[in-house]
Amino acid sequence: MDASEWEQAWTGLKDRFAKGEVGFYDSPVTPDLSQQQESETLASEILKSGRFTDCLFLGIGGSALGPISFLAAVQEKASSAMRFHFAENPDPVDWKTTLGRLSPESTLVCVVTKSGTTFETVSQFLAAAEWLGRSRLKTNLVAITDPSKGDLRAFAAKEGIRTLAIAPPIGGRFSVFSPVGLFPARLAGLSTSDFLLGAKQVRDYIEKTPAEKNPLFIIGQEFVRQASRRSVHVCMPYSNRLRMIGDWFVQLWGESLGKDGKGFTPLAAVGATDQHSILQLLRDGPDDKITLFLTVDHVDDPVKIPKIDFGPGHGEYTSFKLLQGHTFQDLLQIEYRATSQVLTRQGRPNLTLRLDRLDERALGALYFAFSVLTAFTGALMNVNPFDQPGVEEGKIYTREALTEQRSPTD
Amino acid sequence: MDASEWEQAWTGLKDRFAKGEVGFYDSPVTPDLSQQQESETLASEILKSGRFTDCLFLGIGGSALGPISFLAAVQEKASSAMRFHFAENPDPVDWKTTLGRLSPESTLVCVVTKSGTTFETVSQFLAAAEWLGRSRLKTNLVAITDPSKGDLRAFAAKEGIRTLAIAPPIGGRFSVFSPVGLFPARLAGLSTSDFLLGAKQVRDYIEKTPAEKNPLFIIGQEFVRQASRRSVHVCMPYSNRLRMIGDWFVQLWGESLGKDGKGFTPLAAVGATDQHSILQLLRDGPDDKITLFLTVDHVDDPVKIPKIDFGPGHGEYTSFKLLQGHTFQDLLQIEYRATSQVLTRQGRPNLTLRLDRLDERALGALYFAFSVLTAFTGALMNVNPFDQPGVEEGKIYTREALTEQRSPTD
Repeated sequence: MDASEWEQAWTGLKDRFAKGEVGFYDSPVTPDLSQQQESETLASEILKSGRFTDCLFLGIGGSALGPISFLAAVQEKASSAMRFHFAENPDPVDWKTTLGRLSPESTLVCVVTKSGTTFETVSQFLAAAEWLGRSRLKTNLVAITDPSKGDLRAFAAKEGIRTLAIAPPIGGRFSVFSPVGLFPARLAGLSTSDFLLGAKQVRDYIEKTPAEKNPLFIIGQEFVRQASRRSVHVCMPYSNRLRMIGDWFVQLWGESLGKDGKGFTPLAAVGATDQHSILQLLRDGPDDKITLFLTVDHVDDPVKIPKIDFGPGHGEYTSFKLLQGHTFQDLLQIEYRATSQVLTRQGRPNLTLRLDRLDERALGALYFAFSVLTAFTGALMNVNPFDQPGVEEGKIYTREALTEQRSPTD
Repeated sequence: MDASEWEQAWTGLKDRFAKGEVGFYDSPVTPDLSQQQESETLASEILKSGRFTDCLFLGIGGSALGPISFLAAVQEKASSAMRFHFAENPDPVDWKTTLGRLSPESTLVCVVTKSGTTFETVSQFLAAAEWLGRSRLKTNLVAITDPSKGDLRAFAAKEGIRTLAIAPPIGGRFSVFSPVGLFPARLAGLSTSDFLLGAKQVRDYIEKTPAEKNPLFIIGQEFVRQASRRSVHVCMPYSNRLRMIGDWFVQLWGESLGKDGKGFTPLAAVGATDQHSILQLLRDGPDDKITLFLTVDHVDDPVKIPKIDFGPGHGEYTSFKLLQGHTFQDLLQIEYRATSQVLTRQGRPNLTLRLDRLDERALGALYFAFSVLTAFTGALMNVNPFDQPGVEEGKIYTREALTEQRSPTD
C-alpha cells in the first residue's frame, strides 16, 4: 500500500467530516454536536431533585453499548448513587424481573432511539409509560432522539416530555460523545469534560501528526493488507471493567466494515478468563486471526495474594507458593504477557493497546481512537463505514410480520 | 463424505467412550461419573444448616461456564434463596467489590479446579481462605477437584475440607454433568434429576437412531463439508437467559476443535440485541459464516405491549400502533424469523434449534446435544476434541514469570 492510498483515504474522510456528514470526529470540539452542556444541565437538575434512586435505560445497539461500556469501565468513579438498569433486549423474563425491583415513583426512565421508531425500544417505552402512569411522563421520563424526526420526538413534543437531541450527523455506533453517552455518564456522577478531553487529545494528536506516522493509520493499513488471510479480529482486554468495551467494539467493527462482501469478524474476549476458552483456537487453529490486547497499567488496589500459615505441611503445595506474594493485578499482567508470547512464538500476529489507568479521560481517548481507526480502515477498504444497509431488510420483514400478525381485535 | 467416514468417526468415538477415556457421554447413566448423589447429599446438608445466604464460586473456563450458564438459564426456577457470585477472572477491582458485599459468616465458598493448581482459581482460593479465616475452612468451604491429584486435593485432605470429585475421564468443558454443574444447581434448588434426564433422553435417541439419520451427525457433517469456506459459527439465542450458553458453546467449540491448524471460530451473539450489532456483517460481509439460532417456544408471561390511550393525537405514531397488542415474546420470535429470512434470502446458511421451554430437562438435552455434536465433529475432522495442548504453553510461561518475578522477600 503506497502513501497515495493512505492520503486518499484520509483526505476523503476529512472531506466528509468537513462537509458535516459525519459528526463524531468533531463532537469533542463542537458543543452543538456533543450537547454536553444540555446533558449536564438536565442531569444536574434531575440529581438535585433527589427523586430518583434508579435509572431504567431503554435503548439497543448504538443507543446502549456506549453508555453500558462507559459506565461499567469506571463504575468505581461514579459519585452519584443512582443505580442503572439497561434493558436492551425486549426479553419478557428480564423485563418482568427488572420492573419487579423498581418503583415508578423513584425511577427515571431514559429512552434512546435516534430514529424514534426502533421496535425493541419503542415496545419497552410503551410498557414503561404504562408502568409509570401518564401523570409521571413529564417528570420521570427523558427522551434522547433526533431533534426533529420520528415518533418519539413527536410524542415528546406533544406530551411535554423532556428531551435531548442526537445531532443528525452522529450515527448510532459513534454516538458515545453525544447525549447518548454523556447524559447517563453525568447522571452517574462521572466527568463528561474529562471524557471529551480524552477524545480531543487523540483528535489533536491526529491533526498534528503526519498520516504515515499515525499509529491508528498504520494499524488500519496492516489490517487491510492482511485482510484476505486474517479476517478475524479478537479484542481481548485483561480487565473485567473493559469487557463491555469489547461488545461496543464488536458492533463498531462488524457493522461499519461488514459490507460489499468485505469485513472482519470481531470477537470479544476477556483475559485471563478466555485463555481457558479460546486461546487453544488462537494458537493452534487456523492462522486467520489478529489479536488486539488491551491492558491497564495501574489499579488502585491490586489485591495481594496472601501468604497463609498453613502449618508444617505448607511447603508441599507448589502452586500455592508460586502465587503467594504476587497480586491479582500482577497475575493478570503476567498472564497477558504469557498469552502474547504464546501467539508471537507461533507467528500469530497480535498488538497491545495500553491504558495507564481506567478513568474518564483514558476512556474518551480509547473510544475516539477506535472510532477513527474504524473510519479510516473503512475508507481504505472502500466501504462506507457510516451506514448499515443490511440491517434495514430485517426491519422491513419485522414490520411486515407485525402488520400481518395483528390480532383481529386491534 | 460417504457413509464409511461417518461410521468410522462414530465407531472411533464409541470405542473411546467404551474404554472409559471420555466420561461425559456416560455421565447421565453412570452414577460414579456424575456423582449426582454425593452432590445432592452435600447440597441438602448445606441448605438445611441454614447458615448461608451466599455462594462465592471460584472457578474459570470449564469449571465455571457450565454452572454459570445453567443457573442463568433457569434462574426463575431456582427454589433456594442462595445468591451466587461467580469469580472467574482474578480481577482485583471485581474481587474487592464482590467481597465487600459478602460476610465470611454466611458465605459458602465453592472452589473448583480439576487439576487443583489453576493459577487464577488458586489465587482466589488463597484470598478467600484468608478472608474466611482458618476456623471456617471446614464449615464454609467445598472443594471440587480430581479425586486424588493436585494441591487442592492434598490441602483439602489435610485440613478436613469437604470435597466432591470430578471423575478423571471428564474434561473441564464437558463437566456440566459432574459435580461442577450438579452441586451448584442443587444448591440453587434446581432439579439435577431432570437435568440428567434431558441428557439421557438425547443419549437414548442417539443410541437407537441410525447414524445417518441423527440430526447432530448431519449438522456436524455439513459443518465439516463447508469448513474451508465457512469457518465462523455464530451461536445466536433469542433469549437473554441463554446468553451464557453462548459463552459455554464458545469454549466447547473453540477449544475442542481448534487444533492442528483446523477449527471454527465460534461467535456468541444474542437476538434481538445483536441484530443491531452484527447482522450487517452476517448479511453483507464475507460469506464465511454459518448461524445457529436458538429459540424458546414458550415463556410463562410473554409481557403484553400495552395500548395506551394517548388521546386524540394517538393515530399519528405508526410504530407505536404496529407494536401494540403484540407481546415482547412475539416480537423476539418475529425478529428471529426476520433475521433468519434475511440470511436465507442472501444465501447465508443458518439453522435453528428450538427449545419448547427453559427448564432443567431441556437444558440437559441442550448441553448434551452440543457436547455430542462437538465430539462427533472433532472425530470427523480428525482432531482430538478432548485435549487442549495450546493452553499448556501459556501456563508454562506464566509459571516461569511467577517464579522469576518473585519478590526477594519470599
